[in-house]
Amino acid sequence: MPVVIAASVEHGEVLLALFIIIASAKVMAEIFERLRQPAVVGEILAGVVIGPSVLGWVQPSELIAIIAEVGVIFLLFMVGLETKPQDIFRVGKRAFLVGTLGVAFPFVAGYAIASFWGGSFVEAMFIGAALVATSVGITARVLASMGLLDRETSRIILGAAVIDDVLGLIILSVVSAVGTGGVDFGALAWTAGLAVLFTVIVGLFGSKLMTSLAPGITSLRMSKPFFNIGLILCFGLSVMSLYFGVAAIIGAFLAGMALAEATEENHKMHQLTNGVTEFLVPFFLVNIGMQLNLSVFRDASVVALALIVTLLAVVTKFIGGGLGAWGMTRREMAQVGVGMIPRGEVGVVVAQIGLGLAAISQQFFAAVLFMAVATTLIAPPLIKLCFAEDKDRDGIPDPMTEEDVSDDFARIG
Amino acid sequence: MPVVIAASVEHGEVLLALFIIIASAKVMAEIFERLRQPAVVGEILAGVVIGPSVLGWVQPSELIAIIAEVGVIFLLFMVGLETKPQDIFRVGKRAFLVGTLGVAFPFVAGYAIASFWGGSFVEAMFIGAALVATSVGITARVLASMGLLDRETSRIILGAAVIDDVLGLIILSVVSAVGTGGVDFGALAWTAGLAVLFTVIVGLFGSKLMTSLAPGITSLRMSKPFFNIGLILCFGLSVMSLYFGVAAIIGAFLAGMALAEATEENHKMHQLTNGVTEFLVPFFLVNIGMQLNLSVFRDASVVALALIVTLLAVVTKFIGGGLGAWGMTRREMAQVGVGMIPRGEVGVVVAQIGLGLAAISQQFFAAVLFMAVATTLIAPPLIKLCFAEDKDRDGIPDPMTEEDVSDDFARIG
Repeated sequence: MPVVIAASVEHGEVLLALFIIIASAKVMAEIFERLRQPAVVGEILAGVVIGPSVLGWVQPSELIAIIAEVGVIFLLFMVGLETKPQDIFRVGKRAFLVGTLGVAFPFVAGYAIASFWGGSFVEAMFIGAALVATSVGITARVLASMGLLDRETSRIILGAAVIDDVLGLIILSVVSAVGTGGVDFGALAWTAGLAVLFTVIVGLFGSKLMTSLAPGITSLRMSKPFFNIGLILCFGLSVMSLYFGVAAIIGAFLAGMALAEATEENHKMHQLTNGVTEFLVPFFLVNIGMQLNLSVFRDASVVALALIVTLLAVVTKFIGGGLGAWGMTRREMAQVGVGMIPRGEVGVVVAQIGLGLAAISQQFFAAVLFMAVATTLIAPPLIKLCFAEDKDRDGIPDPMTEEDVSDDFARIG
Repeated sequence: MPVVIAASVEHGEVLLALFIIIASAKVMAEIFERLRQPAVVGEILAGVVIGPSVLGWVQPSELIAIIAEVGVIFLLFMVGLETKPQDIFRVGKRAFLVGTLGVAFPFVAGYAIASFWGGSFVEAMFIGAALVATSVGITARVLASMGLLDRETSRIILGAAVIDDVLGLIILSVVSAVGTGGVDFGALAWTAGLAVLFTVIVGLFGSKLMTSLAPGITSLRMSKPFFNIGLILCFGLSVMSLYFGVAAIIGAFLAGMALAEATEENHKMHQLTNGVTEFLVPFFLVNIGMQLNLSVFRDASVVALALIVTLLAVVTKFIGGGLGAWGMTRREMAQVGVGMIPRGEVGVVVAQIGLGLAAISQQFFAAVLFMAVATTLIAPPLIKLCFAEDKDRDGIPDPMTEEDVSDDFARIG
């Protein structure tokens, strides 16, 4: 039948999957908002429900993974647009400490538990590495929807996420080298140096460059020049950062930050970006949920390992990150600590590499996968709790729906 | 190297392709704006340049085709948001005539030239069918960027595009049935009836339903409720329309139209949609350009055939569509005629089906492919020319950049 042919040519199956993802994410977001729980948790759980673990309506795929990646790229780009470079530089020292301790504690804990559980040296190194990287997307989404991106602690978290990513790269390089044979310290230093150099140069000079280019951008004839130049910069720096060894979202964040001053008053450009983010971020969240493999729970020892790894991941990141904020109030230390908890896809990537090198076993892989999803589900309510107190103290009325707040956020943007 | 692994896990190659597409599209758009030519033509040509025909930097792929499809879905959704149902119903009779004559003339011409060129009966039927379907996306993009979607002729074109699509479905069904064996008129009537019924019911009652649901949508707790409900409706109706045998973009257009009244004053919702459209439409345009196969020009007889088919496609659609607007002024008839010229991907799909059934030869396929891209390149300057006169008469100053106009468009939205 031509109808069937047309549907397949027009990607009927794919459009159906996109529809299911958006609709389920938004239904769950609505339910969670009404329960006064973070919408992100609802959207991740939507992924668990429609994914292979429960209903099996949508299977994880390369396409959805790519849309999810573009979604988190836009999210960090938008967060960057709200963040001026000096906001990060001002908290630079503290962010460095938070990033470093927040990496050290989970690495040691991961190494220890894997060794204790009978893992080899290489296996323990990989599990340590898999516990390291914070997935800042989840925290950024929650803070943005609460309108709290301009808090000092929010900026410390963002800055620490950049440090965290660079350190994660170095650790992953070392661990992979150990896994494949030997460590070439010269090559390692070169890789790490390039990553740091790229991040620092773009962070330092990007904003000045874009601010000086702003009049030129205004005089372009293309429609929506700032938005379109922003798109080009966002994707350009995302790709560059990958090839310099940093995550694509760091490049997107740097791109946003480079444009933060030049587009500060450009409400329209922020609103246009906001539209893309709002459309794509559910794919990022649902895709995390779809990774969860509930069949793990058939094996009691894997359940125990998964729960212990998750507990360690939460506690060590909270303590490491929180200690990095030493000297601030206890509440602020807690805010920074919980903000670093979500691991998301990065830990999974590390574990996948370990699996690919036959360096880690299936049970450790299952445990890391569980930890990655579980930390993204545990963190948002904690973030909301730790930051909500703040809102009260500032006299912001409590029964404020996220819609109002995110409207404010859009308006400030 | 872990860096390379990370880049592949994070889809470095894909992100690079997306970057090249956006950057080249926007550079060409800027150049064409400065030459006072339509930006869409520049963006389609960007696809020709970066595609396999010239530089070969980006290859057409399933992924890019899907992003392109989602792009044109958003474009028609946004056009729908600017179009109230009664705007279309008011011009219904005329749109019906434009759609019908605009289908009949190219079909007869395509059948005739293919027969004359030595094609079999089935081959000639397929070429006729391939010349039928208007790709309304191109026209919609040009009219939207000129801020002219509210013209009577624009509405006739949009209405005729819906009729055109349903007629195209019926013709494709008949032709495919002829190609595979015999025509089952019962099944055909059923398919056509369903398609018409779906379109009419959604067109008639969608707007009333959404307007009555609007207070409920306002009271939702999720962030940006109208935008998100709009997304769900847009993808839901796109998928449904495919399974009822109509193109996905018709469903998206109907979804937008259903929300047009309820969101008339909702500037923010329109702006958010606009952001997604602005991001994704370049993929739609570049993807058209990438389909062009310039190696066709090595064979003189194929060149001749391609040029004749293109000429016939332009002239018969112009005359057929224009005659359908009989009774209006000559300028208006010309506006309607040129608005229907672009064929885009639909003719290619028909030709692909013919190729799949071994019903048409490679040279006819090459000619249809050339025609599909060429008509999208020829139409925009003609549209601009035919509608520009109008702007002068209304006393709108001439040296108006598209940026200003599309800003107006955004503001009206």
